[in-house]
Amino acid sequence: MNKIKKIGVLTSGGDSPGMNAAIRAVVRASIYYDIEVTGFLRGYEGLINDDCLPMDRKSVANIIQRGGTILKTARSEAFKTVEGRKKAYNNLINRNIDALVVIGGDGTFTGANVFGQEYDFPIVGMPGTIDNDLAGTDFTIGYDSAINTVIDAVDKIRDTAESHDRLFIVEVMGRDSGLIALRSGIGVGAEAILIPEANMGVEDVLHKLEHSRRDKSSKIIIVAEGDDAGGAFKVGEILQSKYPHYDTKVSVLGHIQRGGKPTCMDRVLASRLGVSAVEGLINGEKNVMAGQVNREMIFTPFDHAIKHIDAEKVSTTWIKLIDILSF
Amino acid sequence: MNKIKKIGVLTSGGDSPGMNAAIRAVVRASIYYDIEVTGFLRGYEGLINDDCLPMDRKSVANIIQRGGTILKTARSEAFKTVEGRKKAYNNLINRNIDALVVIGGDGTFTGANVFGQEYDFPIVGMPGTIDNDLAGTDFTIGYDSAINTVIDAVDKIRDTAESHDRLFIVEVMGRDSGLIALRSGIGVGAEAILIPEANMGVEDVLHKLEHSRRDKSSKIIIVAEGDDAGGAFKVGEILQSKYPHYDTKVSVLGHIQRGGKPTCMDRVLASRLGVSAVEGLINGEKNVMAGQVNREMIFTPFDHAIKHIDAEKVSTTWIKLIDILSF
Amino acid sequence: MNKIKKIGVLTSGGDSPGMNAAIRAVVRASIYYDIEVTGFLRGYEGLINDDCLPMDRKSVANIIQRGGTILKTARSEAFKTVEGRKKAYNNLINRNIDALVVIGGDGTFTGANVFGQEYDFPIVGMPGTIDNDLAGTDFTIGYDSAINTVIDAVDKIRDTAESHDRLFIVEVMGRDSGLIALRSGIGVGAEAILIPEANMGVEDVLHKLEHSRRDKSSKIIIVAEGDDAGGAFKVGEILQSKYPHYDTKVSVLGHIQRGGKPTCMDRVLASRLGVSAVEGLINGEKNVMAGQVNREMIFTPFDHAIKHIDAEKVSTTWIKLIDILSF
Amino acid sequence: MNKIKKIGVLTSGGDSPGMNAAIRAVVRASIYYDIEVTGFLRGYEGLINDDCLPMDRKSVANIIQRGGTILKTARSEAFKTVEGRKKAYNNLINRNIDALVVIGGDGTFTGANVFGQEYDFPIVGMPGTIDNDLAGTDFTIGYDSAINTVIDAVDKIRDTAESHDRLFIVEVMGRDSGLIALRSGIGVGAEAILIPEANMGVEDVLHKLEHSRRDKSSKIIIVAEGDDAGGAFKVGEILQSKYPHYDTKVSVLGHIQRGGKPTCMDRVLASRLGVSAVEGLINGEKNVMAGQVNREMIFTPFDHAIKHIDAEKVSTTWIKLIDILSF
Repeated sequence: MNKIKKIGVLTSGGDSPGMNAAIRAVVRASIYYDIEVTGFLRGYEGLINDDCLPMDRKSVANIIQRGGTILKTARSEAFKTVEGRKKAYNNLINRNIDALVVIGGDGTFTGANVFGQEYDFPIVGMPGTIDNDLAGTDFTIGYDSAINTVIDAVDKIRDTAESHDRLFIVEVMGRDSGLIALRSGIGVGAEAILIPEANMGVEDVLHKLEHSRRDKSSKIIIVAEGDDAGGAFKVGEILQSKYPHYDTKVSVLGHIQRGGKPTCMDRVLASRLGVSAVEGLINGEKNVMAGQVNREMIFTPFDHAIKHIDAEKVSTTWIKLIDILSF
Repeated sequence: MNKIKKIGVLTSGGDSPGMNAAIRAVVRASIYYDIEVTGFLRGYEGLINDDCLPMDRKSVANIIQRGGTILKTARSEAFKTVEGRKKAYNNLINRNIDALVVIGGDGTFTGANVFGQEYDFPIVGMPGTIDNDLAGTDFTIGYDSAINTVIDAVDKIRDTAESHDRLFIVEVMGRDSGLIALRSGIGVGAEAILIPEANMGVEDVLHKLEHSRRDKSSKIIIVAEGDDAGGAFKVGEILQSKYPHYDTKVSVLGHIQRGGKPTCMDRVLASRLGVSAVEGLINGEKNVMAGQVNREMIFTPFDHAIKHIDAEKVSTTWIKLIDILSF
Repeated sequence: MNKIKKIGVLTSGGDSPGMNAAIRAVVRASIYYDIEVTGFLRGYEGLINDDCLPMDRKSVANIIQRGGTILKTARSEAFKTVEGRKKAYNNLINRNIDALVVIGGDGTFTGANVFGQEYDFPIVGMPGTIDNDLAGTDFTIGYDSAINTVIDAVDKIRDTAESHDRLFIVEVMGRDSGLIALRSGIGVGAEAILIPEANMGVEDVLHKLEHSRRDKSSKIIIVAEGDDAGGAFKVGEILQSKYPHYDTKVSVLGHIQRGGKPTCMDRVLASRLGVSAVEGLINGEKNVMAGQVNREMIFTPFDHAIKHIDAEKVSTTWIKLIDILSF
Repeated sequence: MNKIKKIGVLTSGGDSPGMNAAIRAVVRASIYYDIEVTGFLRGYEGLINDDCLPMDRKSVANIIQRGGTILKTARSEAFKTVEGRKKAYNNLINRNIDALVVIGGDGTFTGANVFGQEYDFPIVGMPGTIDNDLAGTDFTIGYDSAINTVIDAVDKIRDTAESHDRLFIVEVMGRDSGLIALRSGIGVGAEAILIPEANMGVEDVLHKLEHSRRDKSSKIIIVAEGDDAGGAFKVGEILQSKYPHYDTKVSVLGHIQRGGKPTCMDRVLASRLGVSAVEGLINGEKNVMAGQVNREMIFTPFDHAIKHIDAEKVSTTWIKLIDILSF
């Protein structure tokens, strides 16, 4: 049944820690199953421009622990056009590539979905994004690393906040999803967490601050960048005007959240998913994302994966948990 | 239905990162539900010697990020005796304590099980051990931190192994369980992993080394301390005698695996379980361990939790995964 | 000669990693020399409000590795007034305190200098600031930790910069001094470093970017917050308009630079200086800062220490070094 | 005066963090001064076997932050022979190499000294070793990183020691030198430090333990591997037999001390020394090690550098400091 002789692999969209571990797993699993691998550079741009290199075990030596992606990544406008995708297809055919593994987030899978159906070309996706905002997998590759980077940073901020009795508003990444804010907020013992999904506003924060322990010297509020309340600086302004007696500071963590060594969980997840993606292609999967749900490997159609909906992910359970812990 | 007015909390057995986050969650959840909390020092020793202190929100301020346990921990021989447990019970009654939360591993729960049945005293356990060897929870508090400590250490060892073309045998903790070795071994891209469960021996390792990539300069073998092959030094001797051309070194990671700041996942797990344990007691749970399975909070009777068996945990799937990735 | 029976210790101004190690050393050295110690909270505010606590070895147990300051810190407007200082003096006399150790930066020493002369009260300062901007010491306590926090952050940013072929402008702390930017810039292999002392402007950066290796994919520019060029965002705008083909991003590292565990060098420096400060007071030193120059402990009058001038610190040697390394 | 057209660079002996930063600086400084660079692999072995590669700016891109050495390293028996050195010389001549930069420790410089004099070949050394045991430089490249790795590990051990009221004997590297033990011991607040230079024995440790704070729960003793007292395990045995009431554990930190990302100080030191070494060769230096003393770049003849003696390095000042801090 295995008719696949050669696969292509690429990383696309925003980078996330663990992408290299994912590439390594795809390459090593392919070699194990006697499949050749070609790596395309800068996501779909590499497909379109035929910018690629052959990959063997040596290509992926000593990269499992590295942040970023050795294949580089980009967002591709050209791949959104019929002409761009046609070029990409021709390059794949000319190189005798039978199937693709694409590592990225919703933008990546949207493109893969269109291309895969347009040319009936087998593609399996791997969830590589720090946002953890995809359906069909409990965790995305990079999320665990990102939240640990956040708590390391906020632990440092807590040191100085404690020393100065300050209120800190810390903005973390997550344009459409508050999942980074949610777990890292619990992890740092935040007084309040502002996330888009929860429809919580600055009013709730004000209420909490008034009712929290009076003698608590430092206070940390975690804000997801996409929150309706309007980003850390705006929240900071509102709080400062309402509570002028607080010494309020704002910190935007920014791009450090995308880099750094992947955690063990991200490396293991990337390794499992990489093997699963290759095995999926061998078994005839296409237009699906490989994911891990309840510790099992599963496949989810791209159009479902990108819907971002996972009722369990931000449920009332989480909201109540935060209420209890920051009471 | 909530007749619980006052609970005791203690940490027992080997310490693990996240125990402080667990204590904090128990204390804050209790306060949220209008329950008083008493912390007992040094595990069951504190119960027996009435060595304890009242806990409020201030007692658990700024500890979520700290390794170790502010309540200290110990193994108690006295609690294994009828007299010891009787003293403990009397102290609990004298202090009007209605229920206990015990944080620890199988030894802790074995003691809790006997005591709970002997005196019909409500106890809920929380899985606090780096070994991840309990049934009834996907992960134990401290496991994620420990495997990240291991990969940080082995990443450092890999640097020097690469520079010298060396073979390193690295021993990690896990007397009865190879789960630390398993995930950390995948996380560092180990050539081979020796774990008790897999009945793998040095023969397999020798076979792998002979068949792995010739041009690979460094090689890392992860050995669980409990492996039948006999610990890292013995494995090192066998390999050195069989492959004298390798420059073989042994490293025993030791107690660094028990300390350090807990990871975000361990803090969140400890926070969720702490709230769940208190809510469980309120709802009448007893003689059970609070655990997280498939992201849900569940309760498992102590006698099942300590059986260490979880078929999925080290399955043939994992063994095959390692084979593919280290091929 | 030792007539000192009781000293006070406080931390003042912006906090820096290693302040706790400094407090610990002052307390332990005092006890060694049979001197009592009182800790004042929130810098000079604690002196004025008589907000203090007695300190013994237990007070400083297990703090050497902690960021922040257990004595808390603040900037005091009241201490700039005659009335404020009079209150402070009366409190010291009422508590039979013979001498003070103040840990902080130039603002702290300015206040100490006035007070010490006004009341002929013996004060020895310890340089606790991340900025390394004091004369009379090669390094200030916290500087080494801060530059390591910066390189950890920029190493992460480099991962994502490399993956996306991006130009990053990273702003580090240092309002009046570019020393954080200087060493961390060299440490991360920055393409350019913009610091106030060097009179370098965006022109130089543009020149460098044009002449640097064409095939270099990522570029990092470090900007000290006090640089005349105008902060990272302004530099980013100029570069973006001049080089629209670069994908330019800005990151302001912010308060993470003040927190975190102190490095070994900062702990050792704080330990040595703390002992030296106490021994200095015993030997009759006053109105001086304890410093380390060429590995020796020395004392420098406050009014010299706060002059910020140290010709060697940012010399043409450093500027040339950066030119060579980023050529 | 600059007649050097092409230099060779190699790393030799035990690896240390910052060697890559050193290689990078040598390569970039050479290019700046219009000199070609050849990198030899595995130290003197590469010279003898003509195992080398041309190096340009791209060869050293993105390595400043990496542990280990991209040129690999080894100890060479062959280079101790006349024949081995003759082969090495012939290879250098055949490749038109005019001068060498060797990065390593005393063994490396001993070889360089013989070779340099035998063939009148210009060699400048760079101190690359974690031991900090060379005269002619305040610090060696890798020392600062190693002591920070040690304190990170011991901070973790302190967590578990505190939780269990344990006494830990921790062995650190330093066969002939206690400098790693010295600074890291101060940095972790050790109760006692056993180093070869100080002629301190287990007796002193026993004395200290008896007289230290009774209520102190955890105790850490740092032992240099070369200490006469006989290594951590022997010290542990003696203490256990003398103080059976302590719960004593031994931890040997091992090779993690050689790896990991270099600290900022090591990167800056390596960068400065690399530029200095190349400029030294241009200016006619030979048979010398480039070092940094009192923040200035200097050159020291190899035969002096390897004498390991630096009176200031372990003076009575340090011993007294430890006494005061652990009083």
